[in-house]
Amino acid sequence: MKIVRTIAKLQLDRTKSIAFVPTMGAFHEGHLALMRRAREAAEIVVVSLFVNPTQFVAGEDYDRYPRNEERDFELARKIPVDVMFAPSVAEMYAGEETVIHVKGVSERWEGEHRPGHFDGVATVVAKLFNIVRPNIAVFGLKDFQQAVVIDRMVRDLNIPLALLFEETVREQDGLAMSSRNAYLSPEQRRLAPMLHEELEQLSKSKSAGDKELSESKERLAKAGFAVDYLALVDGATLEPARKLEKGNRFIVAARLGATRLIDNLGF
Amino acid sequence: MKIVRTIAKLQLDRTKSIAFVPTMGAFHEGHLALMRRAREAAEIVVVSLFVNPTQFVAGEDYDRYPRNEERDFELARKIPVDVMFAPSVAEMYAGEETVIHVKGVSERWEGEHRPGHFDGVATVVAKLFNIVRPNIAVFGLKDFQQAVVIDRMVRDLNIPLALLFEETVREQDGLAMSSRNAYLSPEQRRLAPMLHEELEQLSKSKSAGDKELSESKERLAKAGFAVDYLALVDGATLEPARKLEKGNRFIVAARLGATRLIDNLGF
Repeated sequence: MKIVRTIAKLQLDRTKSIAFVPTMGAFHEGHLALMRRAREAAEIVVVSLFVNPTQFVAGEDYDRYPRNEERDFELARKIPVDVMFAPSVAEMYAGEETVIHVKGVSERWEGEHRPGHFDGVATVVAKLFNIVRPNIAVFGLKDFQQAVVIDRMVRDLNIPLALLFEETVREQDGLAMSSRNAYLSPEQRRLAPMLHEELEQLSKSKSAGDKELSESKERLAKAGFAVDYLALVDGATLEPARKLEKGNRFIVAARLGATRLIDNLGF
Repeated sequence: MKIVRTIAKLQLDRTKSIAFVPTMGAFHEGHLALMRRAREAAEIVVVSLFVNPTQFVAGEDYDRYPRNEERDFELARKIPVDVMFAPSVAEMYAGEETVIHVKGVSERWEGEHRPGHFDGVATVVAKLFNIVRPNIAVFGLKDFQQAVVIDRMVRDLNIPLALLFEETVREQDGLAMSSRNAYLSPEQRRLAPMLHEELEQLSKSKSAGDKELSESKERLAKAGFAVDYLALVDGATLEPARKLEKGNRFIVAARLGATRLIDNLGF
């Protein structure tokens, strides 16, 4: 595995197919599943490791976001990843004035709670796509709204690549794997799987109207979660939906102490 | 010359170098100069002809913008252009939610007078770059601020191409060539070269402070122009500048009746 730290040194054999996995590091099984999917999908696998400052909103955890490059490199080597691209903030943002905004789908839910977050995501992903120029890019569905935003951006801007989305990888107790799970205290960690359980229960209920969603939010609140939102949405537009059917998706964001967890569940 | 009307049919030999000239048609010598430059710069020359609705501000001339495809195709054939890409509005904007905004340089001057204009320009140019994927793109300096905005966007988003900028082509009396000159009445047409004359005079004066700029604006107003702005700016940041020296540039926008003219002059 080649470790590349500057854009100029990222020289790829463009006669071969390239699959790309953008990440912020702190790899867990979720990331490794994306890399394995990329490995199957193309001849060259490029992974980027870049903790993107512009997608952290004021007051968030940019400074304390978990970083452990050596461990990440070791895990990626085992896939095996061909090229690990780990650029500096200084090179990625050398006088940055250009912002990509995806209206509609980026403005709801996470967009309301983390204003500017998806502008940061869309912009850095477009930059990475232009730098790596992959044929295929692989994203996880754990960040479901992010997946919808990137899908919309790729289509709207005619970005010449195919997107692959991988289902969320979970701990044995159902908690969606996330780099931020490391922030949880032992007590919070015991509580955290309840997010997934509530979505599971809702998806198995006969209907998921305001009543069922409210009751679920109350249970989460009583257990100690501060719920930002819990909703059933159209998986393409992210607008509220009513029917428990394919194409729709439950989405949830809730805080346990200072740690914000998100999850989602389809049909 | 191949005329291509859908994105899917734009199949280019990517083993060859590609130079691209995005246009809104209504070709004059200025456009043809860009195409000739592209012809020298690469093996394949692609010209797009697309009157982009999103860069016209409310109340502007989208509907009556001059369109004459057959004449345009004939002129392009003589260069010769290899591929004329003339997509439909419906295909270019099929549910468009993504907008590219270039802060700073797009917010001054034209940005103040045509709010949203440069978002429309940046977004469609990024789309066309992703569709054509050229090695080189050629723009005219007549739209000086547009050139600065695109240069900024290309660098900020790491778009993998080289930009070439061509100096403005002028009529014999100095009027910058523009598709919108066709809107001028004979009387307005006689008056129009005064814009360029004022910039020439300012560039030859000993200084171009507030006094000289004000006097020039007054002369234009007295002659019948409604001046939107007349300024000396830093050619990279577009912030007001003081010195008559290389890197700085005079920029002007003024209306004659319903027709808005812009021009600029460097050192």
